[in-house]
Amino acid sequence: MSDIRLELSATDGAARTGILRTPRGDIRTPAFMPVGTAATVKAMLPQSVRETGADILLGNTYHLMLRPGAERIARLGGLHTFMDWQRPILTDSGGFQVMSLAGLRKITEEGVRFQSHIDGHAEFLSPERAMEIQRLLGSDIQMVLDECPALPAEKAAIEASLSLSMRWARRSKDAFGEQPGRACFGIVQGGTFADLRQRSAAALRQIGFDGYAVGGLAVGEPQSAMFETLEATVPHLPADRPRYLMGVGKPDDIVGAVERGIDMFDCVLPTRSGRNAQAFTWDGPLNLKNARHAEDGSPLDPACRCPACRQFSRAYLHHTVKSGEIIAAMLLTWHNLAFYQDLMASLRGAIAVGELVVFAAGFRARYGRQKPDHPADFPE
Amino acid sequence: MSDIRLELSATDGAARTGILRTPRGDIRTPAFMPVGTAATVKAMLPQSVRETGADILLGNTYHLMLRPGAERIARLGGLHTFMDWQRPILTDSGGFQVMSLAGLRKITEEGVRFQSHIDGHAEFLSPERAMEIQRLLGSDIQMVLDECPALPAEKAAIEASLSLSMRWARRSKDAFGEQPGRACFGIVQGGTFADLRQRSAAALRQIGFDGYAVGGLAVGEPQSAMFETLEATVPHLPADRPRYLMGVGKPDDIVGAVERGIDMFDCVLPTRSGRNAQAFTWDGPLNLKNARHAEDGSPLDPACRCPACRQFSRAYLHHTVKSGEIIAAMLLTWHNLAFYQDLMASLRGAIAVGELVVFAAGFRARYGRQKPDHPADFPE
Repeated sequence: MSDIRLELSATDGAARTGILRTPRGDIRTPAFMPVGTAATVKAMLPQSVRETGADILLGNTYHLMLRPGAERIARLGGLHTFMDWQRPILTDSGGFQVMSLAGLRKITEEGVRFQSHIDGHAEFLSPERAMEIQRLLGSDIQMVLDECPALPAEKAAIEASLSLSMRWARRSKDAFGEQPGRACFGIVQGGTFADLRQRSAAALRQIGFDGYAVGGLAVGEPQSAMFETLEATVPHLPADRPRYLMGVGKPDDIVGAVERGIDMFDCVLPTRSGRNAQAFTWDGPLNLKNARHAEDGSPLDPACRCPACRQFSRAYLHHTVKSGEIIAAMLLTWHNLAFYQDLMASLRGAIAVGELVVFAAGFRARYGRQKPDHPADFPE
Repeated sequence: MSDIRLELSATDGAARTGILRTPRGDIRTPAFMPVGTAATVKAMLPQSVRETGADILLGNTYHLMLRPGAERIARLGGLHTFMDWQRPILTDSGGFQVMSLAGLRKITEEGVRFQSHIDGHAEFLSPERAMEIQRLLGSDIQMVLDECPALPAEKAAIEASLSLSMRWARRSKDAFGEQPGRACFGIVQGGTFADLRQRSAAALRQIGFDGYAVGGLAVGEPQSAMFETLEATVPHLPADRPRYLMGVGKPDDIVGAVERGIDMFDCVLPTRSGRNAQAFTWDGPLNLKNARHAEDGSPLDPACRCPACRQFSRAYLHHTVKSGEIIAAMLLTWHNLAFYQDLMASLRGAIAVGELVVFAAGFRARYGRQKPDHPADFPE
């Protein structure tokens, strides 16, 4: 019996909604996890992240192991205390970031040798070390170390990588051991090959995990390929375990993935965009650098409850963006996280009443409609 | 009868405490005004500034006239609505910033021609335009345009500058005219020359202002010279009007100026320092970059009620400073503003009970004690 428990309350097609119960708090699913890379969701205080509706954060093993270090965080009482977030935290294994260090890392059966991007010193990450770091951080949901190959790739390369990832998944699970109240998730790999995804899912089920992630997507392939891969993968995952699509994504990616049975998401998009003047709305993304906002006294979104929308005009957001003021990053990050959580709440509600198809169609019709503020469209 | 009214509740030596009543809210004096240069107190939401105890903000005419422009702010409902601060705002005249544009500005009897630091376009500021901008912004307390000569300077130069400033003061007051609910403050100049300061004070009293500022100090002279100048100036200001020491200062500057009868202060030090890893405490300034904080699980100040102190350790502040995270600027700015407001509350309390001398002595004994974290002391 897992220490975290998914209680489904409704399904609608392949989609489902419910609550993932953990000792540190309930997580309403489908859930979006804001990314708190270096023990902070950038430009936000933790209570503000909570106010947007977030039930769980993601922390990055790679960044935290390098600075301030997992052992140091453990001595300081663990990641929850360190960053003052007492609700659940999921940590990745560090694999994705390390694999991205092309030329600076070497993968062997044992693990990955790499150089710190901060000071260049030599580091080593193995399945055992990745799990040890996550244990030291005090993570509630710990991810196995896997290899995440860049797409497109030859099937043989994907297959070899998958085999390594499945051996590492076994070692990760063994290293996780028994941690009361904490969970360990496996990660399905296999690129966009349905047979490899299914082989991966079977191998992970054989090991037995508290939840199952789908990794290696949203790395450059078209959205249709991502959705097809989900359709080929999700039916092979246990229905009573949470399913997590890693690193996804844009609002329309999330809607499509929820329709295909995904329960959990994480992505830097709302926070990174907020620091780059981009705001998500039901009409699509807006770019507040655009001069057309300079005299617009109306709110970003009159229905949104975040401070950016309740207290300020588009003109103010434009002014602070143009002036390089920190408050622009603070307000737009807050708004974007609120928008993402509002989207998740809408998806949960639509599933609850059995109208997800209708909601998703309405979302796509409206969200794609407005494209005047593409990030590249800076008339000033 | 002025539209703002100083109600003194206690005096202690030259110091006094009370409430400056304005239609937009009461200002407890002695008061510290956080600086909201470009329509934002940097790295803070307005409700957070209020939570620190601030009753009034300062806005900068120079920055706002250049971006987003006074007429634009007026069209958007005024500065209070634009930046969502419904309490009093004092605006400077823009003079100090313009005078600092050495080589880029030309002073005549009429006013100052200068080039925008943002895009280099030609601008003009006269007493009439400075007051018009402040009226458009909707400022509650408007400052006359004056010339602020750099110290040290020849007495003849200071005297000539003072004469110009007094002519501009008259034109500023005439341009201010009648604005129900709003106040106009004169600015005493005269360098560190007691006779010039007294001549300036007499000239301003002759014109008649709602409050009297002391300008041209804290521009490089020793603290003792500033204090001596205050001692020579304050007795020549009307006792029933607020006295404002512009651009000051360090905590010990403020304590000494309150002892000498000053009621209002503004300074970028707490906010700028907060963005540069420096925190003010009763033991003096700390620099959070310092490696000795890396494993320190204790709070910055266990008695402080701000989020930086209540929710996080010195180790966390150190980590986020070293990582260049925005939350470090947010937390340290909040702390510094809270410290400044706590200092003002302590000064008001000490005056109320007639023990300012004792408080000030205790402050100086403790504040000067610790010097290990000088800003230049970065052992890492």
